Amino acid sequence: MKAEIIAVGSELLTPDRTDTNSLYLTQELNRLGIEVVRKTIVGDDRQLLAEAFRDALNRVPLIISSGGLGPTEDDLTRETVAELLGRKLVRDDAIVRAIEARFRSFGRTMPEINVRQAMVPEGAEALDNPRGTAPGLWIEDGERMVALLPGPPRELKPMFREQILPRLERRVSNVRMFARELRVAGMGESHVEQIVAPIYKRYGEVTTTILAAPGEVQLHLRMWTADAEAAERTLGEASEALEMALGERIFTKKGEPLEEVVARLLTMNGATIAAAESCTGGLVAQRLTSVAGSSTYFLGGVVCYSNELKSAWADVPAEMIQTKGAVSAEVAAALAEGIRRRAGSTFGLGITGIAGPSGGTEEKPVGTVHIALASAGGIKERALRFPGDREMIRWQASQTALDMVRVHYLYGGAAKSAGKEPGRG
Amino acid sequence: MKAEIIAVGSELLTPDRTDTNSLYLTQELNRLGIEVVRKTIVGDDRQLLAEAFRDALNRVPLIISSGGLGPTEDDLTRETVAELLGRKLVRDDAIVRAIEARFRSFGRTMPEINVRQAMVPEGAEALDNPRGTAPGLWIEDGERMVALLPGPPRELKPMFREQILPRLERRVSNVRMFARELRVAGMGESHVEQIVAPIYKRYGEVTTTILAAPGEVQLHLRMWTADAEAAERTLGEASEALEMALGERIFTKKGEPLEEVVARLLTMNGATIAAAESCTGGLVAQRLTSVAGSSTYFLGGVVCYSNELKSAWADVPAEMIQTKGAVSAEVAAALAEGIRRRAGSTFGLGITGIAGPSGGTEEKPVGTVHIALASAGGIKERALRFPGDREMIRWQASQTALDMVRVHYLYGGAAKSAGKEPGRG
Repeated sequence: MKAEIIAVGSELLTPDRTDTNSLYLTQELNRLGIEVVRKTIVGDDRQLLAEAFRDALNRVPLIISSGGLGPTEDDLTRETVAELLGRKLVRDDAIVRAIEARFRSFGRTMPEINVRQAMVPEGAEALDNPRGTAPGLWIEDGERMVALLPGPPRELKPMFREQILPRLERRVSNVRMFARELRVAGMGESHVEQIVAPIYKRYGEVTTTILAAPGEVQLHLRMWTADAEAAERTLGEASEALEMALGERIFTKKGEPLEEVVARLLTMNGATIAAAESCTGGLVAQRLTSVAGSSTYFLGGVVCYSNELKSAWADVPAEMIQTKGAVSAEVAAALAEGIRRRAGSTFGLGITGIAGPSGGTEEKPVGTVHIALASAGGIKERALRFPGDREMIRWQASQTALDMVRVHYLYGGAAKSAGKEPGRG
Repeated sequence: MKAEIIAVGSELLTPDRTDTNSLYLTQELNRLGIEVVRKTIVGDDRQLLAEAFRDALNRVPLIISSGGLGPTEDDLTRETVAELLGRKLVRDDAIVRAIEARFRSFGRTMPEINVRQAMVPEGAEALDNPRGTAPGLWIEDGERMVALLPGPPRELKPMFREQILPRLERRVSNVRMFARELRVAGMGESHVEQIVAPIYKRYGEVTTTILAAPGEVQLHLRMWTADAEAAERTLGEASEALEMALGERIFTKKGEPLEEVVARLLTMNGATIAAAESCTGGLVAQRLTSVAGSSTYFLGGVVCYSNELKSAWADVPAEMIQTKGAVSAEVAAALAEGIRRRAGSTFGLGITGIAGPSGGTEEKPVGTVHIALASAGGIKERALRFPGDREMIRWQASQTALDMVRVHYLYGGAAKSAGKEPGRG
């Protein structure tokens, strides 16, 4: 089956913002064997919107749109599609009540304007939106299917997964997409490509995409077939071959972010962690606490920007800062040790560096970062020089810090678990 | 003038990658007063490609495409557009020689396949591409203009800047885009819409877009005209009327994020800040330090997840946590005061709450957050209940905390600056 995606919203035609929902939608549609043949991004203009939907309806049996379902006058998707399909808009009182209840739960009254969101084209099914006020709509028109979804990704994704996928599953053929995603830390894209190219070329039926993100490289393996067993076998083989080649640099085979891998390792091992950050300014703490249940392993952290607070909050000797400099291996180690002792945690992370844009010197240019990991077994220290701007440097530093915890378990855990890599179960 | 952008390439219809060239192109086109009314992303399929170009040619006088100019058989843009416009493809020997020279410079011989890239539709101008083998094409067809550019951003951007912009500059009227962006904190989208709709309706020549982001609402005002003075006057009036209506809820008129506004206020006032965070886990520190030069106003922060560390690191009395609960107005205030004293800063922020997904109770459900701002003048405290998931709750809490600093200056600064709002200059 073929589908088109229409992203609605004038803000998506500015230099600041473009549609990204379609990446998620494409992934989910592909899994069902549905191919996306075109994406259209169109503004809040009735005529252009009508033209986009009309053309798409003439080409493909399935249209997924995002956006234009809000309560304001430039939200035109509902009205435009109803008119195109020759259906009246009818007020759905159950939706009005649901929106009212949502506003009440924040202690507010529903503005009259939101009643627009309760208008449903005749014969359409309204899709519940627990994360926002705009309900989605599912419309079947002969052989054609149209799903109108809200624009915010945090509303669109669960609505698609919970309410559109089941409807589509009943209708599509049994060709499915099968996929694996490996993520690699601590290696550049070209380096990964050099190592893996000879491997993935052996698997012609697998589509391999290599994507570089800051501080990590992602390997996407995809296969389209009706034969689930063959797909699992081939993808399993290909992914094992890649694991042999890349070894411990692979931090996940499930496409999850590094903080989740570290969270699992810490939780599995009953370990706790604390961080003393300078240049990352709380980014490591924020990433570690972004995982639900983080209070079981994350005790606390300090962000000590000034030299005084490095001493006051993490016991870095003032003299050391004076002689070695605030950005030095010694200070990173002292931060790690100091915060570990003060928090009483299994691990202490210490990070100090120059995120820029100013503050660099010839000896210590912007991008210089020292990271230390303290544990009962001693201190591991890394000196790095990251490329990129302030945001990139901070991100890569946080990525390296988290990866040092993961790598600690690879080696540190080896004795305990008789050579088996922990956290890879 | 109106334009459409067509991005060509099947890889842009996968879950991993989408068109981003259009953001750059839109910015440059907007500068010339050219509005992008639609973007289409289409795969390497002759029929779909032809349809996309044909429809666009019927709608607008200018089309910019990217991609599909390579030497392989799925590179179809050149052929498709030539056919649509009824022009023969003619081999351009100068281009063949240029491509041969490029290969020679890497010590290689040009593969025969690359001759395809030297085929030029009759009457079209080939655009030199020093960074790749694919030349671009500029085609004028009556009143219509079509630019075919290569897909890689590092080839597309300089080619557009050096060879398309000058051609467009000669042709476009002096209509330009003029814009304003106001951002509002602490109000929902519908609420803002209700207040501003009667205002922006008075300015029919101004296009107003309302965008909701977590914890803020953005108002984009745009106007297209050749009369710069009139534009500035009208946008100035409209934006003043909006300011009258929304008052202090507007935190910027320059489209910058809240942390930058707070950074400027603190710097201007020679003030410093420190934060003691529980549920936000370092997000406030991370946002405050994401601004270059943050070391002048941000002294440090602690993330104290455990009750013990709330006492040890921010002097929250253990007894208070016991009697009032870790998530309480009292503990937020104690965190704010404690960290202010310990860091020796002008301001102290204290944040404690339940980000979820677990940990909520009937009395204190997920989303309950207490935030306190301590200064020499005393403590301001807010109790909030945020909707959404863990990430949303944490973000909104950080947004409210930063906004409390801003609001402090609105009122606190009033005496000093004789009624003029500081930071609005």
